[in-house]
Amino acid sequence: MSADAARRAPDYAARRGALRSLLVENEIDGLLVTDLVNVRYLTGFTGSNAALLVYSWDTPGAEERTVIGTDGRYDTQVGEQVPDLCAEIARASTRRVLELAGEWQFGRVGYESHVVTVDQHRGFEELTTGLELVATPGLVEQLRMVKDDYEVDRLRAACAVGDAALAVLLERGSLRPGRTERQVARELEWAMFELGADAVAFETIVAAGANSAVPHHRPTDAVLATGDFVKIDFGAVVGGYHSDMTRTFVLGRPADWQREVYALVQQAQRAGCEALAPGVPVADVDAAARAVIAEAGHGSLFVHGLGHGVGLRIHEAPGIAKTGTGTLLSGVAVTVEPGVYFPGRGGVRIEDTLVVREGGPELLTNTSKDLTVVD
Amino acid sequence: MSADAARRAPDYAARRGALRSLLVENEIDGLLVTDLVNVRYLTGFTGSNAALLVYSWDTPGAEERTVIGTDGRYDTQVGEQVPDLCAEIARASTRRVLELAGEWQFGRVGYESHVVTVDQHRGFEELTTGLELVATPGLVEQLRMVKDDYEVDRLRAACAVGDAALAVLLERGSLRPGRTERQVARELEWAMFELGADAVAFETIVAAGANSAVPHHRPTDAVLATGDFVKIDFGAVVGGYHSDMTRTFVLGRPADWQREVYALVQQAQRAGCEALAPGVPVADVDAAARAVIAEAGHGSLFVHGLGHGVGLRIHEAPGIAKTGTGTLLSGVAVTVEPGVYFPGRGGVRIEDTLVVREGGPELLTNTSKDLTVVD
Repeated sequence: MSADAARRAPDYAARRGALRSLLVENEIDGLLVTDLVNVRYLTGFTGSNAALLVYSWDTPGAEERTVIGTDGRYDTQVGEQVPDLCAEIARASTRRVLELAGEWQFGRVGYESHVVTVDQHRGFEELTTGLELVATPGLVEQLRMVKDDYEVDRLRAACAVGDAALAVLLERGSLRPGRTERQVARELEWAMFELGADAVAFETIVAAGANSAVPHHRPTDAVLATGDFVKIDFGAVVGGYHSDMTRTFVLGRPADWQREVYALVQQAQRAGCEALAPGVPVADVDAAARAVIAEAGHGSLFVHGLGHGVGLRIHEAPGIAKTGTGTLLSGVAVTVEPGVYFPGRGGVRIEDTLVVREGGPELLTNTSKDLTVVD
Repeated sequence: MSADAARRAPDYAARRGALRSLLVENEIDGLLVTDLVNVRYLTGFTGSNAALLVYSWDTPGAEERTVIGTDGRYDTQVGEQVPDLCAEIARASTRRVLELAGEWQFGRVGYESHVVTVDQHRGFEELTTGLELVATPGLVEQLRMVKDDYEVDRLRAACAVGDAALAVLLERGSLRPGRTERQVARELEWAMFELGADAVAFETIVAAGANSAVPHHRPTDAVLATGDFVKIDFGAVVGGYHSDMTRTFVLGRPADWQREVYALVQQAQRAGCEALAPGVPVADVDAAARAVIAEAGHGSLFVHGLGHGVGLRIHEAPGIAKTGTGTLLSGVAVTVEPGVYFPGRGGVRIEDTLVVREGGPELLTNTSKDLTVVD
């Protein structure tokens, strides 16, 4: 598939091929994929009931024994979305594909022990398939960390909707004293839909005044007032991919303490972005931003991790935190979002979505990060 | 607590008391609750990280050893929302409450095996707490089926928002030839927010023409045309509780086949609602509606179950279907939503949310079910 073609359509067969290499490394003959986002990533299927069995031997015959199970509601849809794989229609689709794996004498079959419940697992074991079920958590998530060209294109589109929607909000004068947090949140969401978002990426955060000191504040009927910090954390979904951006504004003339904390968070955020590079441990990225805030004496006010992976889910691997493990690779999409929160007074968070690249990260959220005073 | 007070505020202590009786029946000394909706139901806590340990002995001391764990982000919030229980603040909150259970020598502790993953369970077992962990799926869900006065009041409010939003949509002339499914869906959602919804209950379905034959159609840029069935399935969330309603309209003069299928579904829906009573097996409720459609020769076109419980989740127990088990109780809130779908042509679904009561169900969704022709 050419680079242009890869931007237009996902290459699901290539993704399954990459997965097969992981399955061989893990010494399993097949993988039962029941996480619906992972099924979508590997096949394109978006129905609400599915189980995918991926045959692991990386041979021409492997695709013929890779089968997707779903129920009768999705008979037409699975044919349209997954024309390149066998589909099994059954009410108990997971059971059905496990039975097939048994008939085909797969041997050792991995399952997603990080999403399969204890009750589901007991159900699998009660089937007499002759299979050996092996807990293999996070294999597809490991692949999903590194975004292919198609995915980066969707992330760019989602982030562009976020940028444009925030610009519309400001142009319309929606952010001003007298409005409530809820009104601002709804209007921002409405703008995202007008601009082509399929959905909002998560519950929009609009936090004014003292509420801006609450990291994950849910919008209330609190009224915006002159002198407030207003923290807005939001995102759009486009083609299944999530954008994530935070900007903090000041209504009216900023006080000195507001200028200082804003400049500090801005500096920390820049340090975090500049630390993004292939081969860098994620804990070092967190440390780069955290050191800036700690040196200013506010380390205890930065109460969360620096960022997280983003893609088909709003939160995915890798977690960028003090306790984060692993190193970055080219193509990993992450957020960088330090914050400093003064309880009862107000707080600032600045967040971008970026893709790690050789030679410096690609910034996907392009709204200015300079202190914006809204009059 | 008086009936009036019960409508104003949830009686969490009473809910935990009811749970304790179930724990005694199940011969466990405590229950580890990790499903966040169940934690909310039992305590009022709405944070995104929580583990609750409920001591089972129904004695005055039981509440003192019932403890909620969450992390530092929610230190203030847990104190405000759960003033009546001990809170433990720890990064690994589930681990922490299990350790406490061990220190208190709880003995047999149940866990929610229908939501706990295999990996989480392994983590529990690796702690050396001296506890015997017992799979006890669905205990809180069993309580949640029967709604108390507070909950019915929230469901009424959510359904009232749905009724009012649909009326606003029609008054504004938003539903007319030339509009797209997506536009109609967004405007309906906007109206719900204007009327006080905290969120939409699920992705709004607007399905026009042939798309109305797809039970769970996602709105597209398809344009509404004269002669179309337009099926709208939507809901609002108020105070955590979900409404769920479907109405099907005809744009312009209905054809004879449209009048016939509409009348048939209306008759089936009425039969389903009339079958709702305490003590009735849920499978009989499904059968009552299904028989009407089968007698008309369209049994194969009613491709889903008749309904589902609704409350803090949009789908909860009981499932009302052919294969459904158990019987209804007074206070159970359910949907009744038969449909007949002609592939490629169009379909009709009519859905209400109701509460099962002695003497006949209480209807919460009050929009007319007569065939509404939109000119």
